[in-house]
Amino acid sequence: MFTNISHIGIAVNNLKESVDNFKKLFNQEEVHFETVEEQKVNLAFLDVSGVHIELLEPTSPESPISKFLEKRGEGIHHLSFEVDDIEKELSRLKQEGVRLIDEKPKVGAGGKLIAFIHPKSTNGVLIELSQK
Amino acid sequence: MFTNISHIGIAVNNLKESVDNFKKLFNQEEVHFETVEEQKVNLAFLDVSGVHIELLEPTSPESPISKFLEKRGEGIHHLSFEVDDIEKELSRLKQEGVRLIDEKPKVGAGGKLIAFIHPKSTNGVLIELSQK
Repeated sequence: MFTNISHIGIAVNNLKESVDNFKKLFNQEEVHFETVEEQKVNLAFLDVSGVHIELLEPTSPESPISKFLEKRGEGIHHLSFEVDDIEKELSRLKQEGVRLIDEKPKVGAGGKLIAFIHPKSTNGVLIELSQK
Repeated sequence: MFTNISHIGIAVNNLKESVDNFKKLFNQEEVHFETVEEQKVNLAFLDVSGVHIELLEPTSPESPISKFLEKRGEGIHHLSFEVDDIEKELSRLKQEGVRLIDEKPKVGAGGKLIAFIHPKSTNGVLIELSQK
């Protein structure tokens, strides 16, 4: 079951500049910073009524975010939804013929289990499932 | 004040096909349909824990969604945030030097007041403010 929108990931060239932009937009001072070595990104997030706006800056040209920025430029990279049972959802989606990037969950930021769905199955939108 | 994420707008080529994709994704049967003449779009939305996933299909080549699809292909078109006082937010953002597409609110779907912020000020993300 999909229980929540967890975050909206935005690919940016410069984390500091994007943090300034979104602090201004939301009129909000509170920002959290994190580095996810595995994805080669520095991230910052702002909480907007429980949904995280997650700004993602690549730390290396091999980061998936670098590839996205080269191809599409800055903008929304993915949507992340919380599910109660990620293994069950992945197996349901596979049975329904949905293309999965990850057939098995992997460990993401904050120790959550995550898996990506292929944007071919969701009209160009990259979607992440996550389970706490 | 930003009180909520209202919806996530996704540009699609074929509404029916995209509705099938997202019903499958969310394992959900309930979908609402609407036509917004002013924006020249047919839309469908699914409610995911209070946030609407809004699928937008152009009804004419002059629709802003047609232009987006030509340039970028299918994918996320905009994020919409609810604010308590749209006039006040627009004037605050203008003072802070944020580029606005609409300096004054206009009437959008469902009779809400809406205004768009220029993606140049928000790292490539088109953001809509809305007030009930």
